[in-house]
Amino acid sequence: MGVTTSRRGIVRVVGGVPSATTDAVAVESPLTTVLDGDVLVTTMRTPGHDLELVAGWLVNESGVRRAEHITGMGAFATHSEEEGVDTVRVSLAEGVRPPRARAFVTSSACGVCSADVLAAFDGPDAPLHSDAWTLPLAAVPGLMDAMREGQRMFDQTGALHAAALVSPSLEPLWVREDVGRHNAVDKVVGKALFDGRLPLTDHVLVVSGRISYEIVHKAMTACIGAIVAVSGPTSLAIDLARAHGLVLAGFARGDRVNVYSGDNRVSTGAGT
Amino acid sequence: MGVTTSRRGIVRVVGGVPSATTDAVAVESPLTTVLDGDVLVTTMRTPGHDLELVAGWLVNESGVRRAEHITGMGAFATHSEEEGVDTVRVSLAEGVRPPRARAFVTSSACGVCSADVLAAFDGPDAPLHSDAWTLPLAAVPGLMDAMREGQRMFDQTGALHAAALVSPSLEPLWVREDVGRHNAVDKVVGKALFDGRLPLTDHVLVVSGRISYEIVHKAMTACIGAIVAVSGPTSLAIDLARAHGLVLAGFARGDRVNVYSGDNRVSTGAGT
Repeated sequence: MGVTTSRRGIVRVVGGVPSATTDAVAVESPLTTVLDGDVLVTTMRTPGHDLELVAGWLVNESGVRRAEHITGMGAFATHSEEEGVDTVRVSLAEGVRPPRARAFVTSSACGVCSADVLAAFDGPDAPLHSDAWTLPLAAVPGLMDAMREGQRMFDQTGALHAAALVSPSLEPLWVREDVGRHNAVDKVVGKALFDGRLPLTDHVLVVSGRISYEIVHKAMTACIGAIVAVSGPTSLAIDLARAHGLVLAGFARGDRVNVYSGDNRVSTGAGT
Repeated sequence: MGVTTSRRGIVRVVGGVPSATTDAVAVESPLTTVLDGDVLVTTMRTPGHDLELVAGWLVNESGVRRAEHITGMGAFATHSEEEGVDTVRVSLAEGVRPPRARAFVTSSACGVCSADVLAAFDGPDAPLHSDAWTLPLAAVPGLMDAMREGQRMFDQTGALHAAALVSPSLEPLWVREDVGRHNAVDKVVGKALFDGRLPLTDHVLVVSGRISYEIVHKAMTACIGAIVAVSGPTSLAIDLARAHGLVLAGFARGDRVNVYSGDNRVSTGAGT
């Protein structure tokens, strides 16, 4: 089993009082599946049980229904032992319907590692922050409440994700809901595009769930300055945010919040 | 804005006592994006703000950064007014980097509707249930507890999804965790494949989050008999489950549970 949790230094803020500590975060890293020598798909996942992950994916996507349908399977660390398994190679028995290849295949038949993923993003094409901007953490509970008030469909169904955009002066702008976390963020950014607001320098994105790599990527292509979430970020989300200075705050509940990235851009305490 | 919530008849069980009622569920339906006449991607989403959804997606996936980069955009109901918008057609200004086309594109340049999605699944290749099998709802709280006890990474990070497999005699088998809901289910099914357990007739899949179309699809390719979830199912998840008789139980919290599909296969009350 690979490394499934990782520790990151964070700033924990309780009642406006910050303290530096470390926190366990869920690891997210890419796994590439190679079928009979051809790259099939690269998936972001939590390491561990990687052969099961690929086998179960094949049950859903191909004709694999019995263990004998898989004639060979192995997990490989093609980049470094430290990074751990990044590639699963698999062969199917003759006559078993193969899965369709997916988009975002890499050109080489070895996997990509987390460093490749981080390097593949050129960075935002405008600043995330203006010189003097900071996120006052005392305002975070109000931002969470404002998003919650906008979750009209959640009120009815109890089962939808939401994202909200907040202006540089901390005015809630709009809330969007969707069954998909990513879709809710896309809708928020799309509205901003139509309104001529991009780049979203100094804006805050509030999300109802966890923060994965892709949520951070979406925020940074729109040049958003900070993400605040009800739940926590993954390892790769933190690493991507830190590489470009995005403020990442998670587990924003009541007067508590954890700052995972960009703590030089947050302000705390009674003075804010 | 399209229809974003929908009502379905359900059986609500509180303290072992069932009652027939209706419940609002989040709508999930396919949206196809057509770029300059070519199908780009089909996404499952909650209807509403569809132009924003596509615009925001383009910001993340292409060179679109200003509204003028999109020279034309329209939402269309190509199947029926009742189904609502199923296709967004978009054109980009010359010189704007287009997104890469995604897998799962359809061959025609009009969208797919929910009925197409339901019809595209041939159904499980073995029975989901043996003749006499039912899910005793009184056992559900214990199954949820068993999954929760297996969420070791969640205990550390507070930010991971889980899925668990339960035997026909309601013995918890294994729990898997991942940043992705889908990945956790794939890992559970992959383990079953390796153990020679497929098809998973009469088995129960327990999941920590919501039930989307794709979770139901994964369960049914493995011939799982029932899904029990902490949160609720989408409209399309319910419709797919009902088409094939899969038991779908959601909002399983304490002594309460809602049965969205397969209520002829659940047993309630003190007699079970």
